[in-house]
Amino acid sequence: MSASPVEQQRQDPAPYARPGGFPVVGVVGGGQLARMMQPAAVALGLRLRVLAEGPDVAAAQVVTPAPIGAADDLDALVAFARECDAVTFDHEHVPGEGLRAMAELTSVQPGADALVHAQDKIVMREKLTELGIPCPRWARVADRAAVEAFGSWPVVLKTPRGGYDGKGVLVLSGPDDEGWATADAWLADWADRGGLLAEEHVPFTRELAALVARSPSGQAAAWPVVETVQRDGVCHEVTAPAPDLAPELAATLTDVALRIAGGLGVTGVLAVEVFEVERDTPDGPVKDVLVNELAMRPHNSGHWSIEGSVTSQFENHLRAVLDLPLGSTEPRAPWTVMVNVLGPKVIEERHEDLYRSYLHVMAHDPGVKVHLYGKEQRPGRKLGHVTVYGDDLDTVRARARHAAAFIAGEIDE
Amino acid sequence: MSASPVEQQRQDPAPYARPGGFPVVGVVGGGQLARMMQPAAVALGLRLRVLAEGPDVAAAQVVTPAPIGAADDLDALVAFARECDAVTFDHEHVPGEGLRAMAELTSVQPGADALVHAQDKIVMREKLTELGIPCPRWARVADRAAVEAFGSWPVVLKTPRGGYDGKGVLVLSGPDDEGWATADAWLADWADRGGLLAEEHVPFTRELAALVARSPSGQAAAWPVVETVQRDGVCHEVTAPAPDLAPELAATLTDVALRIAGGLGVTGVLAVEVFEVERDTPDGPVKDVLVNELAMRPHNSGHWSIEGSVTSQFENHLRAVLDLPLGSTEPRAPWTVMVNVLGPKVIEERHEDLYRSYLHVMAHDPGVKVHLYGKEQRPGRKLGHVTVYGDDLDTVRARARHAAAFIAGEIDE
Repeated sequence: MSASPVEQQRQDPAPYARPGGFPVVGVVGGGQLARMMQPAAVALGLRLRVLAEGPDVAAAQVVTPAPIGAADDLDALVAFARECDAVTFDHEHVPGEGLRAMAELTSVQPGADALVHAQDKIVMREKLTELGIPCPRWARVADRAAVEAFGSWPVVLKTPRGGYDGKGVLVLSGPDDEGWATADAWLADWADRGGLLAEEHVPFTRELAALVARSPSGQAAAWPVVETVQRDGVCHEVTAPAPDLAPELAATLTDVALRIAGGLGVTGVLAVEVFEVERDTPDGPVKDVLVNELAMRPHNSGHWSIEGSVTSQFENHLRAVLDLPLGSTEPRAPWTVMVNVLGPKVIEERHEDLYRSYLHVMAHDPGVKVHLYGKEQRPGRKLGHVTVYGDDLDTVRARARHAAAFIAGEIDE
Repeated sequence: MSASPVEQQRQDPAPYARPGGFPVVGVVGGGQLARMMQPAAVALGLRLRVLAEGPDVAAAQVVTPAPIGAADDLDALVAFARECDAVTFDHEHVPGEGLRAMAELTSVQPGADALVHAQDKIVMREKLTELGIPCPRWARVADRAAVEAFGSWPVVLKTPRGGYDGKGVLVLSGPDDEGWATADAWLADWADRGGLLAEEHVPFTRELAALVARSPSGQAAAWPVVETVQRDGVCHEVTAPAPDLAPELAATLTDVALRIAGGLGVTGVLAVEVFEVERDTPDGPVKDVLVNELAMRPHNSGHWSIEGSVTSQFENHLRAVLDLPLGSTEPRAPWTVMVNVLGPKVIEERHEDLYRSYLHVMAHDPGVKVHLYGKEQRPGRKLGHVTVYGDDLDTVRARARHAAAFIAGEIDE
């Protein structure tokens, strides 16, 4: 049996003809995730390259070269892949055809067979169920009758593809919910594409996320499980490690994430977002987890790792993509809290100048770590995040919330 | 009295017409120091721009745009300054004329009046003596007679300008030293430019460095004093904080650095390299410090701060240059050790591929932080550095030394 391209690469780095042997890693998509790979690439001497949506997207401001091309433009993907020793992603929106075309030219991590599980929620549910991973009760539904037959209300309807940050998700409280206008349209739209995903509405106690990195040769590393808080369907606050989480449940969740990474053949970072639920048992209430979503790339729930862990998710993603040994995922502080800076609902003129907020925020707290992504403000848009770490969770959380709210213009002092 | 440009800027960030108000910081020189400013700029959303010596120097690989221009090319400096909201430096080699021309167009930090003390060692000695800062005994010497009249041997001769990393420095053991051939040539060369600097050869117990950042409005912050070890005149190993340093002497040295920063009007990072000496007194031996060199920019003795401190020297340099409030300089671990990766004396073919060393180094120690600068190998050249932190100094130091030596090809396992 001949060695896989990745095994060959590991045995013989010679294919990299760059000075010093340093490979070029291409990232399809120029958002903040690609942008935050750049500091890790700078440190390791890797050459980053971004296929950007436009000349001034977040990553194109700080990575050179950044050719322009859409994620579904086959010619652009092929030309990009030819110039990269490995290709990875800022998002999951590259069609399978593009993934396969690039894979004929270079190492693509994660590959199409893994990525499909982050692209199609029904494929994901089928595979996780096959692997015995705990999921919310779910069904494929092709029409209204199937939704009503699903049973318990409320029911969550999801488009299998194209959703993110709460988009493509609808909660129906019952047969008379006014959301049925949208639901009917979605059902019609997806009727000849396999239908929609229906899921039980899980009465969760909180949301958690498990972040792991896995390399093509199978090495894996897991960061501590975190608690995530959403606001309007968008990740807003992450606490690492998740407070008051029983070690057994943390171990269960980490095991779930590693089984998913291995079972789906994920390479790079995998984020597993789960619901923490409480079940009544004869022995009393027991906490458990149900997998909600998967992301196969650095994820908002892992931004805390830039300062909070020995190796950030961005560095380990690059190491995994190149099949380098992974770095330590040990936390660097007892508590690390990340809070997103979201574009304010109303962008007042005095807050157009985000930079001005630095004068107050930095003077107020010399220990806060600010990350802004170079993006123009739009209501609810992820403009950046702040991270604070320390020994006392309440203090750390208050500091991070204050800085993020001040930068976002939600508070004045 | 009208506000200085910097004060105006602080009161009113409006001059920055960039999206979100984020300023463009220009760095003259594209070496590893400019390169390592990029991760800090990426996080803060600042736009970095580099005036690079060539298209593929260390910083030009990771900063865009990076126009090409020499540090003594007045036209290039002026064109560069026009596109920047603030200009700072990767080195101290921009002539005064260029500094003044740029200062008419934008904020230049540090300014010519401060920078001259890092450019001219005689000007530096005169000013430090005036400020009452402890220095080795020194004299300006114009001819051989003056060197011999200086007194105690050995004597250290230095060219006032143009020296770095041990270059431009000569130690003469006595009137018959064979180094006199070079010394006579230097004396002749500098005779009509004010002569050379002669200094006593200090029998130091070790070398220390104090790193501070100072902003135009006068805020200053100091990192812990570090111990530095040179190899062939080049910084090789840095331990933070300096082991076995009496708190009183650390405070004295920090005070010396802050007095120099204030007295010379330094803005940005200032590194003060000193000799630790032991003097005999009636009460027994007493440790003291004598200032050796100054650098007005991020410095090799501060690379440990990337992982080892809440705010790295690169982030605080940018914050100081923009007159933003400075970040915390608190250490993040009991011990942090940085070891330089220096180009091997003989570059064997098998070590041409530096990247290959990652397979071993990263597998051997998942906690080591590797930084390589994208530079081609030359014997003795600073190619990168590694940083390790932890609770036990001996372990931390052994880990850092092993990783650096392996990457540099000095050891095989």
